[in-house]
Amino acid sequence: METVQKKLWGGRFEQSVTPAVEKFSESVSFDRKLYKHDIQGSRAHATMLAQQGLISMEDMENIISGLNEIERRIESGEFLWRTDREDVHMNIEAELIDLVGDPAKKLHTARSRNDQVATDVRLWCRDSMDKIIHKIMDFQVALIKLADSYKDLIIPGYTHLQRAQPLLLPHLLLAYVEQLERDIGRLKDCQQRMNYCPLGSCALAGTGLPIDRFATASALGFIEPLRNSVDAVSDRDFLLEFLSVNSILAVHLSRIAEEWVLWASEEFGFLTPSDAVSTGSSIMPQKKNPDPMELVRGKSARVIGNLTTLLVLCKGLPHAYNRDLQEDKEPLFDSTETVIAMLEVSTEFAYNISFNEERIAKSLTAGHLDATTMADYLVYKGVPFRTSHEIVGKSVALALSKGCQLSELSIAELRSVNPAFDEDVYKYLGVQNAVGWFRSFGSTGKACVMEELRLWKDKVVRR
Amino acid sequence: METVQKKLWGGRFEQSVTPAVEKFSESVSFDRKLYKHDIQGSRAHATMLAQQGLISMEDMENIISGLNEIERRIESGEFLWRTDREDVHMNIEAELIDLVGDPAKKLHTARSRNDQVATDVRLWCRDSMDKIIHKIMDFQVALIKLADSYKDLIIPGYTHLQRAQPLLLPHLLLAYVEQLERDIGRLKDCQQRMNYCPLGSCALAGTGLPIDRFATASALGFIEPLRNSVDAVSDRDFLLEFLSVNSILAVHLSRIAEEWVLWASEEFGFLTPSDAVSTGSSIMPQKKNPDPMELVRGKSARVIGNLTTLLVLCKGLPHAYNRDLQEDKEPLFDSTETVIAMLEVSTEFAYNISFNEERIAKSLTAGHLDATTMADYLVYKGVPFRTSHEIVGKSVALALSKGCQLSELSIAELRSVNPAFDEDVYKYLGVQNAVGWFRSFGSTGKACVMEELRLWKDKVVRR
Amino acid sequence: METVQKKLWGGRFEQSVTPAVEKFSESVSFDRKLYKHDIQGSRAHATMLAQQGLISMEDMENIISGLNEIERRIESGEFLWRTDREDVHMNIEAELIDLVGDPAKKLHTARSRNDQVATDVRLWCRDSMDKIIHKIMDFQVALIKLADSYKDLIIPGYTHLQRAQPLLLPHLLLAYVEQLERDIGRLKDCQQRMNYCPLGSCALAGTGLPIDRFATASALGFIEPLRNSVDAVSDRDFLLEFLSVNSILAVHLSRIAEEWVLWASEEFGFLTPSDAVSTGSSIMPQKKNPDPMELVRGKSARVIGNLTTLLVLCKGLPHAYNRDLQEDKEPLFDSTETVIAMLEVSTEFAYNISFNEERIAKSLTAGHLDATTMADYLVYKGVPFRTSHEIVGKSVALALSKGCQLSELSIAELRSVNPAFDEDVYKYLGVQNAVGWFRSFGSTGKACVMEELRLWKDKVVRR
Amino acid sequence: METVQKKLWGGRFEQSVTPAVEKFSESVSFDRKLYKHDIQGSRAHATMLAQQGLISMEDMENIISGLNEIERRIESGEFLWRTDREDVHMNIEAELIDLVGDPAKKLHTARSRNDQVATDVRLWCRDSMDKIIHKIMDFQVALIKLADSYKDLIIPGYTHLQRAQPLLLPHLLLAYVEQLERDIGRLKDCQQRMNYCPLGSCALAGTGLPIDRFATASALGFIEPLRNSVDAVSDRDFLLEFLSVNSILAVHLSRIAEEWVLWASEEFGFLTPSDAVSTGSSIMPQKKNPDPMELVRGKSARVIGNLTTLLVLCKGLPHAYNRDLQEDKEPLFDSTETVIAMLEVSTEFAYNISFNEERIAKSLTAGHLDATTMADYLVYKGVPFRTSHEIVGKSVALALSKGCQLSELSIAELRSVNPAFDEDVYKYLGVQNAVGWFRSFGSTGKACVMEELRLWKDKVVRR
Repeated sequence: METVQKKLWGGRFEQSVTPAVEKFSESVSFDRKLYKHDIQGSRAHATMLAQQGLISMEDMENIISGLNEIERRIESGEFLWRTDREDVHMNIEAELIDLVGDPAKKLHTARSRNDQVATDVRLWCRDSMDKIIHKIMDFQVALIKLADSYKDLIIPGYTHLQRAQPLLLPHLLLAYVEQLERDIGRLKDCQQRMNYCPLGSCALAGTGLPIDRFATASALGFIEPLRNSVDAVSDRDFLLEFLSVNSILAVHLSRIAEEWVLWASEEFGFLTPSDAVSTGSSIMPQKKNPDPMELVRGKSARVIGNLTTLLVLCKGLPHAYNRDLQEDKEPLFDSTETVIAMLEVSTEFAYNISFNEERIAKSLTAGHLDATTMADYLVYKGVPFRTSHEIVGKSVALALSKGCQLSELSIAELRSVNPAFDEDVYKYLGVQNAVGWFRSFGSTGKACVMEELRLWKDKVVRR
Repeated sequence: METVQKKLWGGRFEQSVTPAVEKFSESVSFDRKLYKHDIQGSRAHATMLAQQGLISMEDMENIISGLNEIERRIESGEFLWRTDREDVHMNIEAELIDLVGDPAKKLHTARSRNDQVATDVRLWCRDSMDKIIHKIMDFQVALIKLADSYKDLIIPGYTHLQRAQPLLLPHLLLAYVEQLERDIGRLKDCQQRMNYCPLGSCALAGTGLPIDRFATASALGFIEPLRNSVDAVSDRDFLLEFLSVNSILAVHLSRIAEEWVLWASEEFGFLTPSDAVSTGSSIMPQKKNPDPMELVRGKSARVIGNLTTLLVLCKGLPHAYNRDLQEDKEPLFDSTETVIAMLEVSTEFAYNISFNEERIAKSLTAGHLDATTMADYLVYKGVPFRTSHEIVGKSVALALSKGCQLSELSIAELRSVNPAFDEDVYKYLGVQNAVGWFRSFGSTGKACVMEELRLWKDKVVRR
Repeated sequence: METVQKKLWGGRFEQSVTPAVEKFSESVSFDRKLYKHDIQGSRAHATMLAQQGLISMEDMENIISGLNEIERRIESGEFLWRTDREDVHMNIEAELIDLVGDPAKKLHTARSRNDQVATDVRLWCRDSMDKIIHKIMDFQVALIKLADSYKDLIIPGYTHLQRAQPLLLPHLLLAYVEQLERDIGRLKDCQQRMNYCPLGSCALAGTGLPIDRFATASALGFIEPLRNSVDAVSDRDFLLEFLSVNSILAVHLSRIAEEWVLWASEEFGFLTPSDAVSTGSSIMPQKKNPDPMELVRGKSARVIGNLTTLLVLCKGLPHAYNRDLQEDKEPLFDSTETVIAMLEVSTEFAYNISFNEERIAKSLTAGHLDATTMADYLVYKGVPFRTSHEIVGKSVALALSKGCQLSELSIAELRSVNPAFDEDVYKYLGVQNAVGWFRSFGSTGKACVMEELRLWKDKVVRR
Repeated sequence: METVQKKLWGGRFEQSVTPAVEKFSESVSFDRKLYKHDIQGSRAHATMLAQQGLISMEDMENIISGLNEIERRIESGEFLWRTDREDVHMNIEAELIDLVGDPAKKLHTARSRNDQVATDVRLWCRDSMDKIIHKIMDFQVALIKLADSYKDLIIPGYTHLQRAQPLLLPHLLLAYVEQLERDIGRLKDCQQRMNYCPLGSCALAGTGLPIDRFATASALGFIEPLRNSVDAVSDRDFLLEFLSVNSILAVHLSRIAEEWVLWASEEFGFLTPSDAVSTGSSIMPQKKNPDPMELVRGKSARVIGNLTTLLVLCKGLPHAYNRDLQEDKEPLFDSTETVIAMLEVSTEFAYNISFNEERIAKSLTAGHLDATTMADYLVYKGVPFRTSHEIVGKSVALALSKGCQLSELSIAELRSVNPAFDEDVYKYLGVQNAVGWFRSFGSTGKACVMEELRLWKDKVVRR
């Protein structure tokens, strides 16, 4: 099998690499994920070679029908991936030579694996970003529907995990939607910036053969060719950006997850996940755990870890291609697949929770959520804010000492703290009153939130 | 001094925090960097409060002249920063109360430190991004000038740190310029995306007081107010994005640094830094080290570390503000200052190196940099690329065994490898011939590179 | 001022470095923290040089009295640190030359900054590890005292943040103590492994001068000299290990912090921090936030970030010293100071919390914390565990549907689920019964926990 | 298939999880690597249960023979891993029930997956650390043999990648060996610290059933049981430590790799890897790349990334088990397998390189490697070091201006720099003289290095 096992680059070599080195160096076990984009790139390349007269039309047709057959075999599971053929590119090219013979040996004209893999990876990323954007939108829809189902539900808002002010649940859910929208923006910017074609940069210096890089760029849906061949084969900044964007998205999801895990606890008791998104314990029969969201929180770690890997990988590498860069693919694939799965499961979770409205309503009496509104009331009465803040602080201390709510203090008690209080203060106290009071743009006031909800529903329908 | 030391939020508190907690919690030792933007935000806020009738015009004027005086004192070094006043916001507000009395107590109306700090930080970032962009452009100019000074200098291009193909030095320098240009693009996208105003989101829920968030947003140069108050005070995705962008930029600089450190070695000997950017050894008198670029390479590590810090910080935090977020500022400041210094020093280094043209020219004979061109020649002769690759591989083996260059093999020797060689092959061999041969778009061919250089010079002049 | 500004390594240099490079390269602004250990090392070095006859006794005495004077000046604030003298080493040596003249010029005999800084840093680390160990022990004492104050307090134990089984509070607090004890173990292992002396390795190759490295190693309290000069000046694995150990410790503290922040929430309501360790809000007068523990949680991020910085820094650096390594000090200092402060504040927090025993007691009825004990009961009755697990699962479902606790189900109801139940089941139900039941080694059973508490108190007294 | 698909914890559940959640939550696709240790743990557990009378001897025998059969099936590839059975534990337990029926339902008595997985992972780590230690020793042997083959080879030593002083190649190779020895020390410390048994801690609180944790701990080779059940199931500090240790090791390997990649370049030309550990280019026929070492350098990135993942994962998690912790296994497996492969390939590379002695010898004349020795000479003559450093600096400048080596300066020229020079200076100049001069402990002097080499050979033989 000597002739088969001979590497395609083996001209000057007298000895094969050792099995350990072969296993260590191979990438086909993971880069085969690129097969579709590799074939897509080769089709465009072959077509261009023929158009430029570098190969005959007949050769081109043979190559393309061979590539089509290979794609079919891969997708039907008939294709035999071979580690001794190193990577996805060599597996496909060598198989193509087996299939169509000599014309296949012309496919690699004016191309190197360096520009080929850079092209494949960009195509793969472009598609993957579309997928992630789509999954984010699905999650936004789920959140908007959830908001729509609980239009009037007031929950405690927290800072420092201490009760702060009342919030409409839809207001908080739309905060998530806003954050996710920026994630989409980042993905689109990244997608746009990387949508330039490395093909034709060859090993690092370009070529003297009369290729048409604009033709291949256009055939593959790129904006135009990258303008510098060394840059084209060396840089992985588009991957660093993509993995950064994924990490930010993953952090967003981890924060939602933390919140929902808290809310599902006995102590908060805000929501109950359905059995369809809960799991039990192998020893404690009463348990019903919000595992999917714990895993969403946990999986954010690997998305961040993948980014670290890629940054460490690229740091301090000289130009142009170094073999280290082969290590860029696994963190890319894992990061991408992980955020997609996190989004899917978060969406499913959102469709499978119900809020315990009665229990939440009961809990709203604790925590003096109306204290800030009381301070605003005093401002209205002409008390400087710093002074009003102090007055309310003392009123809270009084309520705490009596074990009651602010609204349960008598007007006499309030006046004992400060004479600025009038009977109309009670219109501002209590959680319902407090929420009713908010009206600034972007606030949790009912009218503001409903307007935002309407805008989001419109937007979601439109796309 | 009891009244002075009383915290501004101390209404309900009976006991002061311990000195250890005070020291642990204070942020004024580092967030004072925000003073200018904090005062800028307070001016806009006070103006809006007066326009909306929430404070009198007179109060507003008092506040603003007090703020101006504080700014003056800070910049002249007269201002006493006090740790017991916790942070930059409280230091300025408390000083303002000392200065102008009661009107100052109204400044914090319809504002919380949560939206205040979010506003300050966004303003600071916006300015810092401008600074970084400016410094990148300076470095690009230095690189372009360097390229212009060595228009015809051919150097070996490397892959795997092995000699691969000849490159025009300007081609490699323009690869750096391309990468830096994408860094600018990322900064601008990030700047645009974060240019929305949190002010008026207050603690987390907005306010019922009739503020005008569009007025403050506009006065501060933001596109418009953020649309969701919880999002506005909770999210730090804009910082994660900024620090990601800085990390990618730092990786780019680390790669250039690695290359220049290599080139400055005795072994490569491509360039000599002037004394102005070199340092010596405390023990080895003959040393002349390219320290600045080593430090550029090394400092990329802290830029990446700062990003890690911020990702770890934000992961899994529930909404809205948590005190953890106070820790966002030091990595932000350090990342920003570090990339600025890295850029400045890289620029200075670029202006202080000279290339050793003679030595480089001598070195070009080694490494068979013309092998790929020889393969292209065979393709021209109709040999399929895979076959031509193998033929050249054998020719290289022959040259190696004879200790000569490809161009030094006789035509008879070449034909002994394969009969496809003709006398015209020598027009393709040798480094000068090889470089002359490149002509694909984005390649290292002289015409291509000169055209790119011209475009960059135009672009640089234009901005 | 030419003579003054001349660098000590400047023999072959004709031009000074530019101000930007000087600022970028200087380290004295942070490495001055090493002054004490630098002077300590120089004293030992000078003594050895004199013992070996490399300098005279008189020179040695002059050097040492000069060093003593410099140390005094530094500690009294009289010493002028100069950026143009680059680093702590050059500042002290140049000042020494100013002070005692020619003898000082002999101090750097058989020494380089490369081995000098490696020595200083190891000495600094050794001391810092002692400090951290001491602070961990303080925190352990606080936790043990807290455990001792609440010997009988039962709290809900959680998995997945869902109520799982009852725990004695001391059991959980002793879990923290165990984890911290392993942190001490890691610090001691690291301290032992790094306690070897680089001094005398000089630039990288050692020296031909007849120095006695065993003498300096011993004088500085090291086990012995490092055995390989290149290793001694190149490797920073001891810092990587130290920062890893700090990171693990910081993760431990972050987990305790998370737990205490949860417990301080209105929803959990397990503990109340005193005012001395809480802070308020600038806008919400009722707030009382457990900020110190939020910051402990947050500051774990920078400890991890510092580790990342150092790993990225060292990755791929060739031997021996590279200037990049100057960047090792800031992450080291920050990591160390941060974990010390985290420990101090956690200790203070532990002394300033009180548990709300009544509220906790009330809460124990929810969550079916006795379910596992019920399953164990059935195992006792001969039911295979998997079957008993399922039976209890159904009993929980029944209790949920009736809105009652397991102990409130009648024996008839229980038997309707499975006939294996007998009247004695009630001895196992209810939280008090459930806790009473535990008896395995290391379990939360009262006897086990009290024995562990006793052992820890003994151990703490002993040290 | 309802009964089959029913989860073992499903008693109280009415609905199955959705396919997406099932896929997201399953871990059997990766945690099956634990099968051997899971079965080992179950055998010990069943034996103990029988010894304690909790199950019958017959049940125990059935269980153990069932487990043996399962192990056989797994190893022969007959075992069907089922995703709907979630993880390795449930796959084995459910299969055991299928195989031996009711007795199998008793195996999970007094055990939870929480303590089970903690036990499995510790067993797996213990074995893996042994493997890594073994592979490190193999690499040390290869390095020592290499040192032995080039006992007299002098190479330039570098700082700042600038030529500094001459080194014996064995000296540098033994520096690697020293570093690797500390890696072994760290692994052993970690292994010792984690060798305590969690089994019997059950879900988090222990159990009331009369188990014997000392028996299982001893049967499994642990030192003793962990002393606190909550700690036992919550903490992953042993994994953080293991992954830190792997990261430090990986950094060491990356530095060696960087050095060897440099040395294999045309410019350095110090070593030539054999074809068995090199690869070629798909486009450039003359290339011979040291890919394995580039990949070693690159793969250090993922080892660091895995550590980041685990630190991020654990940060801020409350006690006890959270589902996030399921994510600990993939970084653990990947980190471990990666460092093993890195070590294997580095070892193989070390056996497949040859040093180009002639070329190295020629290169030694450049870079003034004897300058420090010249300075030491002047110290001998009584010149203070700082002065001698300056004198040599000027001598180097003179040599540079004349384009010669220090040893080629005439005595008159030297004296023109400083009269302290005598004819005997030439005994110290030139690289051979310079190396001969070193004699301090740990230096690159021939005698020192040979003694160290002898000690290492002894040590390696002994183990």
